[in-house]
Amino acid sequence: MPATIIDSTVLGDIFSTPEMRAVFSDERRTQYYLDIEAALARVQARLGLIPREAADEICRHCRVEEIDMAKLKAQTQRIGYPVLGVVQQLVASCAQGLGEWCHWGATTQDITDTATVMQIRAGLELVERELGAIAGSLAALARRYRDTPMAARSNLQQAVPITFGYKAAVLLAGFRRHLERLRELRPRALVGEFGGAAGNLSSLGSAGLEVQRLLMAELGLGQPEIAWHTMRDRIAEVGCFLGLVAGTLGKVSLDVKLMMQTEVEEVYEPFAEGRGSSSTMPQKRNPISSVYIHALTAMVRQQVPALLDAMVGDHERSTGPWEIEWIALPEIFCLSAGALAQARFLLGGLVVDPGRMRRNLDATKGLIMSEAVMMGLGPALGRQRAHDLVYDICRAVISTGRPFLDLLAENEEIARHLDRAALARLLDPANYLGLCGEMVDRVLGNA
Amino acid sequence: MPATIIDSTVLGDIFSTPEMRAVFSDERRTQYYLDIEAALARVQARLGLIPREAADEICRHCRVEEIDMAKLKAQTQRIGYPVLGVVQQLVASCAQGLGEWCHWGATTQDITDTATVMQIRAGLELVERELGAIAGSLAALARRYRDTPMAARSNLQQAVPITFGYKAAVLLAGFRRHLERLRELRPRALVGEFGGAAGNLSSLGSAGLEVQRLLMAELGLGQPEIAWHTMRDRIAEVGCFLGLVAGTLGKVSLDVKLMMQTEVEEVYEPFAEGRGSSSTMPQKRNPISSVYIHALTAMVRQQVPALLDAMVGDHERSTGPWEIEWIALPEIFCLSAGALAQARFLLGGLVVDPGRMRRNLDATKGLIMSEAVMMGLGPALGRQRAHDLVYDICRAVISTGRPFLDLLAENEEIARHLDRAALARLLDPANYLGLCGEMVDRVLGNA
Amino acid sequence: MPATIIDSTVLGDIFSTPEMRAVFSDERRTQYYLDIEAALARVQARLGLIPREAADEICRHCRVEEIDMAKLKAQTQRIGYPVLGVVQQLVASCAQGLGEWCHWGATTQDITDTATVMQIRAGLELVERELGAIAGSLAALARRYRDTPMAARSNLQQAVPITFGYKAAVLLAGFRRHLERLRELRPRALVGEFGGAAGNLSSLGSAGLEVQRLLMAELGLGQPEIAWHTMRDRIAEVGCFLGLVAGTLGKVSLDVKLMMQTEVEEVYEPFAEGRGSSSTMPQKRNPISSVYIHALTAMVRQQVPALLDAMVGDHERSTGPWEIEWIALPEIFCLSAGALAQARFLLGGLVVDPGRMRRNLDATKGLIMSEAVMMGLGPALGRQRAHDLVYDICRAVISTGRPFLDLLAENEEIARHLDRAALARLLDPANYLGLCGEMVDRVLGNA
Amino acid sequence: MPATIIDSTVLGDIFSTPEMRAVFSDERRTQYYLDIEAALARVQARLGLIPREAADEICRHCRVEEIDMAKLKAQTQRIGYPVLGVVQQLVASCAQGLGEWCHWGATTQDITDTATVMQIRAGLELVERELGAIAGSLAALARRYRDTPMAARSNLQQAVPITFGYKAAVLLAGFRRHLERLRELRPRALVGEFGGAAGNLSSLGSAGLEVQRLLMAELGLGQPEIAWHTMRDRIAEVGCFLGLVAGTLGKVSLDVKLMMQTEVEEVYEPFAEGRGSSSTMPQKRNPISSVYIHALTAMVRQQVPALLDAMVGDHERSTGPWEIEWIALPEIFCLSAGALAQARFLLGGLVVDPGRMRRNLDATKGLIMSEAVMMGLGPALGRQRAHDLVYDICRAVISTGRPFLDLLAENEEIARHLDRAALARLLDPANYLGLCGEMVDRVLGNA
Repeated sequence: MPATIIDSTVLGDIFSTPEMRAVFSDERRTQYYLDIEAALARVQARLGLIPREAADEICRHCRVEEIDMAKLKAQTQRIGYPVLGVVQQLVASCAQGLGEWCHWGATTQDITDTATVMQIRAGLELVERELGAIAGSLAALARRYRDTPMAARSNLQQAVPITFGYKAAVLLAGFRRHLERLRELRPRALVGEFGGAAGNLSSLGSAGLEVQRLLMAELGLGQPEIAWHTMRDRIAEVGCFLGLVAGTLGKVSLDVKLMMQTEVEEVYEPFAEGRGSSSTMPQKRNPISSVYIHALTAMVRQQVPALLDAMVGDHERSTGPWEIEWIALPEIFCLSAGALAQARFLLGGLVVDPGRMRRNLDATKGLIMSEAVMMGLGPALGRQRAHDLVYDICRAVISTGRPFLDLLAENEEIARHLDRAALARLLDPANYLGLCGEMVDRVLGNA
Repeated sequence: MPATIIDSTVLGDIFSTPEMRAVFSDERRTQYYLDIEAALARVQARLGLIPREAADEICRHCRVEEIDMAKLKAQTQRIGYPVLGVVQQLVASCAQGLGEWCHWGATTQDITDTATVMQIRAGLELVERELGAIAGSLAALARRYRDTPMAARSNLQQAVPITFGYKAAVLLAGFRRHLERLRELRPRALVGEFGGAAGNLSSLGSAGLEVQRLLMAELGLGQPEIAWHTMRDRIAEVGCFLGLVAGTLGKVSLDVKLMMQTEVEEVYEPFAEGRGSSSTMPQKRNPISSVYIHALTAMVRQQVPALLDAMVGDHERSTGPWEIEWIALPEIFCLSAGALAQARFLLGGLVVDPGRMRRNLDATKGLIMSEAVMMGLGPALGRQRAHDLVYDICRAVISTGRPFLDLLAENEEIARHLDRAALARLLDPANYLGLCGEMVDRVLGNA
Repeated sequence: MPATIIDSTVLGDIFSTPEMRAVFSDERRTQYYLDIEAALARVQARLGLIPREAADEICRHCRVEEIDMAKLKAQTQRIGYPVLGVVQQLVASCAQGLGEWCHWGATTQDITDTATVMQIRAGLELVERELGAIAGSLAALARRYRDTPMAARSNLQQAVPITFGYKAAVLLAGFRRHLERLRELRPRALVGEFGGAAGNLSSLGSAGLEVQRLLMAELGLGQPEIAWHTMRDRIAEVGCFLGLVAGTLGKVSLDVKLMMQTEVEEVYEPFAEGRGSSSTMPQKRNPISSVYIHALTAMVRQQVPALLDAMVGDHERSTGPWEIEWIALPEIFCLSAGALAQARFLLGGLVVDPGRMRRNLDATKGLIMSEAVMMGLGPALGRQRAHDLVYDICRAVISTGRPFLDLLAENEEIARHLDRAALARLLDPANYLGLCGEMVDRVLGNA
Repeated sequence: MPATIIDSTVLGDIFSTPEMRAVFSDERRTQYYLDIEAALARVQARLGLIPREAADEICRHCRVEEIDMAKLKAQTQRIGYPVLGVVQQLVASCAQGLGEWCHWGATTQDITDTATVMQIRAGLELVERELGAIAGSLAALARRYRDTPMAARSNLQQAVPITFGYKAAVLLAGFRRHLERLRELRPRALVGEFGGAAGNLSSLGSAGLEVQRLLMAELGLGQPEIAWHTMRDRIAEVGCFLGLVAGTLGKVSLDVKLMMQTEVEEVYEPFAEGRGSSSTMPQKRNPISSVYIHALTAMVRQQVPALLDAMVGDHERSTGPWEIEWIALPEIFCLSAGALAQARFLLGGLVVDPGRMRRNLDATKGLIMSEAVMMGLGPALGRQRAHDLVYDICRAVISTGRPFLDLLAENEEIARHLDRAALARLLDPANYLGLCGEMVDRVLGNA
């Protein structure tokens, strides 16, 4: 009977994904604990620190299926942390007391942190896959609609013409930066923890650093230069990265919602029977995925300061701040996964209506071309004079409702420089798309 | 396979409580939907808007046990919201097409919001119960240790003596204010929603307000003066309240952690075999509950801005902001429940060591009594002169390590006014507890 | 050379107000310190604790004009807190060493906290005035446009007709609740602090509580039941209140921005020459005030968790958390003041275009009336059958582009129950406004 | 009369620094606007787009001293943005109408964003300098106290011995990672903006990209691949970086505060006459810098979600989200500067008391060596048996108050393996420092 929306039977697959939930499940986390204990035993046997047969026996039992979860729950509630309970069960599973050799020189937080890093590694792989798919969809949209005119909007006012491909390319450039960030942070984030009670490997003697090195190699993780039990920038940086991704997804959601408005209708979320319909208003087509992305990314944003707060850990092993990560990290990954999946779905099947885009460009009786006209008149009249003149005519268009072209053509100062045909050319959006195409090519070429 | 710590099999009962999770479970939420549909049918039958037999048949099937949750999940993923799926299943359950009369004039959000308010009502009852228990424990501590001297600390420096009962009474006063806030916000928060698509009850004609009035009476909720589909201050205020409670709980946790330090050891969390022990450091006694409270309340704090963000809803039914509440509200309640339960446990069984409190008072060789000495000398020497003189002697105590009493007694200016016995009386913490006792009585008397 | 936007010479009066800045200025804060010192001296003289002439001399010098601010800065940087520096200057100003009697029994935080409460009192008065003005404007809009039809929007899709007055009344009800919250929190927030080093008034002996009572009466503040040096719920609650107000203002801003879109144009911010114009796009009319409200309220939201964080104060006088308030409280008030002023301006002069509202209702070829048609057909066909039939016809309208009325009239199942004239009546928005008018009256009547 | 603490006359230099405030002052921002306008004119003259003499005249007047700030304020309040006012004043300053050629093809946001990036560049230089100084101090502490034993603390309980140099090296490794992050983000953050109204350079024709390239070269900034007017990940990433730095500074502050406690007293903030003293408690030595760092970094954390929120910008030029940056960015830099300066001061002059560290190690009658004893007994007794035995003896030490060594030596099972002298060696902290020294060398060697 789950209480959170992430784990909800009914809503969980809308607000997150089964794959990401699996990464942060009790089972997977516990299995990671066991993978680490097994790797530690192997490494210590290799170095002669524990008997080979102990390592073999330990590794044989490092399977989550052998863990009694109800018992683990009881142990955890008594002790306060789950690792010791897992170790106790593992010790008990091993024959001939060989389990006594497990967990040698490790501390609870070594195992927990390293498992967390393994969850992060798995989580970031899912994130990267989704980012790649989204970037692919945006690249396809940028290519296909490279020259499809639509209105740019500034302060929610139609401003000048752009193309829809350009709009997609702006987003694409952002997602490319996210992929770059991901590449950069991985070596910092994917570093294991193994230092014992205070991180100084005191219980392993001089072999400690070698055990650490081999253990991390075994797990495919980086070796830390020194303990980071209470230096949590590695973790918080991952949170920041997901926060940045959420910010961009929020922007995607907002733009789609705005373009789907009844009064705009330039794009639609992918259609599926019944999707986005209302129980009482059959004409509606709701931006369902955008709605979820909005909510999910708003929540992701607030996990970031929580993870920054978790950095303020006391002394060598913190008293509360660490546990903030236990709550926030699964959430930020699961919520991000939900938002990414919705965005991938949305962008992968986005329905674009170039005809409506064109009609919306005409909605202002030509006023959207005022900058083009101003720039066209600039060389003849000077920029400021052109600006002031066009500004006045625009206000006249608004107050009289007459077409921009007519009022421009009637103006004597303008007529001295441009005839009606020239003005009509200035007023055609297709003639004023600037470098949209070149910029699309530039971004696509960076791939 | 839950992913969140709230729903975790292993950790969920540490970070939340089964009771609070039940309030926000799929089952309970769905049952509330059905309770509302049933109440609506009853009311509309009473007013003659739908046939009596339809209402009877509908009410007969308004049981969550009749809902196919797997099917509901599929419906919800298709439609985007669970209410319509529940209604469709309910319609299908009813004989003779009588189910067609259910949900009459309601919109998805009416049912969802009203169910949310019912969850809030149930959640606040649990919160109130815990606050009451905590206040009770604090009152007992305040009474029992009314006159037990300990060091007050300012900027983590020992400052002057107080009593432990006074320390408890300060906390108690804060929890009393929370109970007062809860009383005040209930009438604002526990108001239902029933307005149809845009809140103006257009689909019910002139009977709409009467249906609304009777429906809310049936559910024991307040009737709204007007729709609040996108005016979410009622909900966000509840979040703020829980945020304020979390702030106070965080303070409790911090003080207990600090008092449990190896170097302080004035109080302990309730002892239980193995609780708070370490796998490698058997001497430790960790402040387990305080740790969880710290983490839980840090997370609660970050749900508050999320709920404030959810207030920024567009037009008559919002496009994303509403769904923020779906994520944040269960979390803030479940996390608060975890923190409250830990605090109740902690304060209910707090182990207090008056002997150690007394010894800590002596740790500064008397320096903690410097204000008392300064105030004692004030009438004779003037406040500023007394301050400067005592300040210098204090620094001499620190640099020489000699007792404060000796240096004071040796000072000729002081000796003119107070002999060694009088100085010794000034230096006894028990003689400088101020109005601790009176203030404890004042707070206890307010109950 | 200020660095913050609040204090910016160029931008400060857009993002805040001079009045609110004055409340949180160095001068005002310092004057409040002096007001408290003066009141304390008067009260202590009245009780015979200090000489009458000392009180007179102290009160004579409790004027901020006598404080050397450059010196105070130097003192503050040395000591860490400004109060002691102010006291030292005050002592020095007083003749004959009478200044020695000032600040008797008080601690730095007593003066600082009480001054903060006086700032809060002044700040809340400004907030209340703005809330009152905004409520007044909304009431006027609700009254004037009680029956002016426009499209309600759900998920940014046109849903059903409402009236603009109804939209205003929904907002008005929210602001009324804010005013109610303000009334409730004042007695909790406007409580002074006077307890000495650890709050137990140890330096004043048995007269302490009487000094405290008279001091608070003198200042017009409530007397605390016990010290709240590290129980900061009073302050954080004020922050929560401002956060809730910000949430509602954010909603106002969002709706205005959406209604001002080029494709919607139903309302405009008050026009002023040049306001909201673009340097390159003369046709634009930007929602300037809404833009600021959006940004300001987003920032206010993030001060709230900071103030909740400030509640986690250690022991009797906290080591850092308190200073969070020093930063956050002036900001949250100054930013709120900016948002409130912009909202008051915006709503006080909002330009409403009922004609465009009516035309937008027609934009969907009648589809916005689908619920009305569905409800109109319900009694004859059954709700579900009516829904399914209307749903199919709506999709046909969308795919064919033909008017809703034509397709409805052509349907044989419908024709059996309603003729074209009856259908046309169903399709008139003015006939389907539900209880908008009644609800407006209900809200206005609550005043 | 500034209202914010950053700009406060009295407190501003505690909570921020004059250098950082200067970067975000009206004057500097306006000068950056003018620098960009000058660079643009130079570049456009070089490409023959505007007359050489116009560029010369424009550059001649691009000095903030020529700007009338009061007039600019009035213009800005009318228009809503300061850039147009600056341009208008610049145009008016230029002789012979040559000013008309300035700002050619640019939009308000091009200038504002590029100026913001220049502020970020200057701000990050100050941040880097402070980070470098802090890292230097930590390296010195790590080197000097490489082998100075002290208690590690886990959950605020003494755990095992480490060295103070090790503690410093853990911090140092974190600051090194911050410097690495700074290097990585610079190329993404320090990119200018120049795209015209919708970013597609429509007003400059085919020369647009060349103007953009040369302009950025002139300003020493990267050229964007495409407009980022509403893709704000570059800015938000800077905020995240400062948030991460704040997290680490918060940890420094917390550890220092805890080590300065009366009951611990292992380190002190640098001493200065009167600094950290109390008006009523002369014996106190308050952790002043740590207090400020705590408060400042708590505020920095909350600017991060604000900057992530600012990423959710609509369409091509956002309606409110952009302005969030105007408020948050100066704050996050100014608050970070304050925290960094306090940390540099604190760590640069930290007073360390190795004697007290050693005495605190002895506070538990040897119990802190329990892990060492357990590990020493492990080979003989088995890990679990050793753990259980030592655990029981530890509890006996706690309950009887007798020394650990005595109880160990009296135990027969232990006596079979280790005599009292061997046990005494096991109990000497200096013999159980693990790899503290090696790890310090490892971190120092990475420099």
